[in-house]
Amino acid sequence: MSQPQVEFKGYAIVDPKNYLDMKVIEIKPKKFEADDLEIAITHCGVCGSDVHTAHQGWGESKLPLVIGHEIVGKVLRVGNNVKGFKAGDRVGVGAQIGACLQCRQCKDGYENYCPKQIDTYNAEYPDGTVTQGGFSTAIRAHQQFVFPIPDAIESRHAASMFCAGLTVFSPLKLNGAGPGKKVGVIGIGGLGHYAVLFAKAMGAEVYAFTHSKHKMEDAKKLGADHVIDTNEKDFAKPLSTSLDIIISTMDATQQLPLKDFLSMLYVHGRFVNVAIPDLDQPLPSLHAFDLVPNGAYIGSNHIGSKSEVLEMLELAADKGIKPWIEELPMKDLPKAIEGVGKNKVKYRYVLSQDLA
Amino acid sequence: MSQPQVEFKGYAIVDPKNYLDMKVIEIKPKKFEADDLEIAITHCGVCGSDVHTAHQGWGESKLPLVIGHEIVGKVLRVGNNVKGFKAGDRVGVGAQIGACLQCRQCKDGYENYCPKQIDTYNAEYPDGTVTQGGFSTAIRAHQQFVFPIPDAIESRHAASMFCAGLTVFSPLKLNGAGPGKKVGVIGIGGLGHYAVLFAKAMGAEVYAFTHSKHKMEDAKKLGADHVIDTNEKDFAKPLSTSLDIIISTMDATQQLPLKDFLSMLYVHGRFVNVAIPDLDQPLPSLHAFDLVPNGAYIGSNHIGSKSEVLEMLELAADKGIKPWIEELPMKDLPKAIEGVGKNKVKYRYVLSQDLA
Repeated sequence: MSQPQVEFKGYAIVDPKNYLDMKVIEIKPKKFEADDLEIAITHCGVCGSDVHTAHQGWGESKLPLVIGHEIVGKVLRVGNNVKGFKAGDRVGVGAQIGACLQCRQCKDGYENYCPKQIDTYNAEYPDGTVTQGGFSTAIRAHQQFVFPIPDAIESRHAASMFCAGLTVFSPLKLNGAGPGKKVGVIGIGGLGHYAVLFAKAMGAEVYAFTHSKHKMEDAKKLGADHVIDTNEKDFAKPLSTSLDIIISTMDATQQLPLKDFLSMLYVHGRFVNVAIPDLDQPLPSLHAFDLVPNGAYIGSNHIGSKSEVLEMLELAADKGIKPWIEELPMKDLPKAIEGVGKNKVKYRYVLSQDLA
Repeated sequence: MSQPQVEFKGYAIVDPKNYLDMKVIEIKPKKFEADDLEIAITHCGVCGSDVHTAHQGWGESKLPLVIGHEIVGKVLRVGNNVKGFKAGDRVGVGAQIGACLQCRQCKDGYENYCPKQIDTYNAEYPDGTVTQGGFSTAIRAHQQFVFPIPDAIESRHAASMFCAGLTVFSPLKLNGAGPGKKVGVIGIGGLGHYAVLFAKAMGAEVYAFTHSKHKMEDAKKLGADHVIDTNEKDFAKPLSTSLDIIISTMDATQQLPLKDFLSMLYVHGRFVNVAIPDLDQPLPSLHAFDLVPNGAYIGSNHIGSKSEVLEMLELAADKGIKPWIEELPMKDLPKAIEGVGKNKVKYRYVLSQDLA
């Protein structure tokens, strides 16, 4: 087994108050173990999570910290237990890089709900090594959290599928999005634009909801069958009890007209919130009565499992699904963080390697 | 078709400030139509809804008003379109007495979610007739909302099944309660004691949660496999991500330790709230993060459909399920209202006819 020399370094947040003033730091990677792959990173997408982590909206980060969890790269070497991968393979890594693989959740194929799951950055391995993300030269990951990329998908398109794409693919799939189903998508952004693309590719009738007039045309181009301007008074009334699933990707959950959206669900329909705002932004208050008229459910979903990743990639390859992205070099990460924070990106920044 | 003379009268709330000072009034029944049955009432259970309506906690009532929607009686006559019923049959009527029977919900067997549903009391028929409940001599109802009672179930036991029983049976059934499933029940009262009885009869492993020490023994007698005192610190920890379904019957929803209960659900588990407090009592505030670790769902359920009523009665008859009730004559309705409001009843008052 060849062991190429690889330098682990990345763009790191060092000062929580000046989080855009990043420094290139050396990274201490996890110990290379038998189930691990070592990957030379070529691309990494910029996720809303990166913004929340950067500005400490989800609590204090473990600084210095390299963010980024929509990773694409080439396999440099594989551990002795690794199956199905070889050096040179093009692979992806998403927002999760570890799990116990022993518990009920892991055994049920729900490793994304393992109580001992390890986030790709800002978490710790059992030995105390802090996980560092993808705006860096290389990463080591357990084979369970590495995904082969089909030839039909370009690396720059694959990157953001591993968090943004998966985060909406999983709840669409689990809640039965497909022919004969009506799917609402709230928010046309990184996650929302994927939700429109995937729901449509699955055969559902797609209703896109946005309060940004300039995004309405984009939503149609993405494939939405109907686009609804949520600034319109009574926008929910014509759709009363008609939708089967609503995927909410709007980060400002506190501003959600949640009761309006719940009123649009058919009997036992599901409102799946996949946006996670800062800790000081709760969901709008609900009364028990609000859920009664249609027996609605509100819930969430956490990224997705490996089997869902593989299914998502197959769908994307088969249907030629391409996210809308803007490409920048990794050194422009601060600019991208600002662009995501101000909701300027259309609809995902993907940064390419410039350190290695 | 015989047309026996029947006098429609009942115990009515007349003064919202002195709602326990009830008067016997004459009732104007709905027009008798071809799909209707006329029923001489023998029993009526006292529901939490009666208490909320009586003290105007759900808004202003249409006074004078006869409450009561857990009705058992004998059929006096049937309309020309009525099938499967004849005079003398023992039947029940629950909390719903009308629906359009034309919409998608009605055609799908979800008539309990019909947007034009009519409550058994305090609602209006299309012609403006105000619906009046079961603490009365007689009622007319469309055959869709009348249920035959199996011989194996006594009338006094059947009465409270038509609201309390059904309200928990439906979500248990719809969410797959059965062998291999772990079902939590919050609150041991009218609804909660039925949830324990039914979940156990369906073959589930039942976890009863109560903050009333004196109810713990009862919960075991009802069949709970485990009884958890929610006054205990960290009561939720040993059950982390282990329950498939939680049925919450605790009226004081605002005091629910909701995050603790959500933490006990297994992946994509369901928290079904079936208690509906006064309008000024919202559910506890949630943050998007609270639903993420297990992809949990929180939702509700509205009574149940006719097919669910029939299935519930069959289960109750087969398994000999008997609710725990206290029997009083109808004139003691004010006393029963007080007893329910103060959570003194074990676990349902059933009032028997004393006006006819």
